[in-house]
Amino acid sequence: MKYCSECASELVVEIPEGDHLPRSVCKQCGAIHYRNPRVIVGAICEYEGRLLLCRRDIEPRHGFWTFPAGFLEMGETTAEGAARETLEESGADVEIEDLCAIINVPYIAQVYLSYRARMRGPRHHPTPESSETCLVAPEDIPWDELAFPTIWHSLRFWMADREAGTRGIHTLDITRRPRELRERERSHDSGD
Amino acid sequence: MKYCSECASELVVEIPEGDHLPRSVCKQCGAIHYRNPRVIVGAICEYEGRLLLCRRDIEPRHGFWTFPAGFLEMGETTAEGAARETLEESGADVEIEDLCAIINVPYIAQVYLSYRARMRGPRHHPTPESSETCLVAPEDIPWDELAFPTIWHSLRFWMADREAGTRGIHTLDITRRPRELRERERSHDSGD
Repeated sequence: MKYCSECASELVVEIPEGDHLPRSVCKQCGAIHYRNPRVIVGAICEYEGRLLLCRRDIEPRHGFWTFPAGFLEMGETTAEGAARETLEESGADVEIEDLCAIINVPYIAQVYLSYRARMRGPRHHPTPESSETCLVAPEDIPWDELAFPTIWHSLRFWMADREAGTRGIHTLDITRRPRELRERERSHDSGD
Repeated sequence: MKYCSECASELVVEIPEGDHLPRSVCKQCGAIHYRNPRVIVGAICEYEGRLLLCRRDIEPRHGFWTFPAGFLEMGETTAEGAARETLEESGADVEIEDLCAIINVPYIAQVYLSYRARMRGPRHHPTPESSETCLVAPEDIPWDELAFPTIWHSLRFWMADREAGTRGIHTLDITRRPRELRERERSHDSGD
């Protein structure tokens, strides 16, 4: 963020009076430009005992598997966002049931909400975001080919509830970057 | 948002290719400027059976009562944010215990997370954001003088759990603007 989105002047980074964190501040018009974490909403969608997975056709983690999930948009509830993302990424029409997991990922400033959902029919198909979509039995989930730790943990919570016959809301903080991310940063640092 | 924060060119509002919503787009450098909902984190803080309330010394809802709550910052977990807001708004040092409520407020693009917390000592005091702070017995909560519906509902959930001897994670969507907000908008519309 270099220029003020209100008056196009150059921004400075400083701690505004009464604040405690550095912000991008416009000395011309006085606007303070805050950055805040974002909410990701996803749906673990079930149809006749199987779960809907999508193979990512976009970066990051192109080619890896996920359940439908994406950024919450202005004006929608988290459940509405999860249903919308499911339709966009897989063509599936779902009824959102209840919240399964809330996962903090502070190193990328995300709060992740995963819902349980039921597909209203068997329809699902590839989309611009998903090269493949499929229904898999829980025992066939490709654990080593999941796109993100949040997806892995959400599905583990879902499985644990299923085995216990419960439906909990699980909370988790993922405070350590996955090895892959750390290695990518190291190679950037060393100029590779 | 009028100017590109990356190159200072004027922005246009259009639906980017592959997207489905209008965004602020820079035709000069290609940057797309997204807006997303924000996360509010708060703490219902207990000390020897009483709850910590703060009288707001800032707008909106100046003079009304709240438990400590505010915007989640980059790089912190929701529980860390709730503890930080508590210290900033009331001077109280708390241990965050568990999540009490997740409330969607889509008409102002907020997701509200309220935690249960325990004060590590009796210390609390007015701050730049709170003209008064006090510990009140649950039966003395000023229900009609609370600042926001999210605060009201979170405290109701807290009370219901206390009466039932449970500690749940409650979910709620507040999809209707409070009367006060609707009236303020009506008076703006009519040019008052």
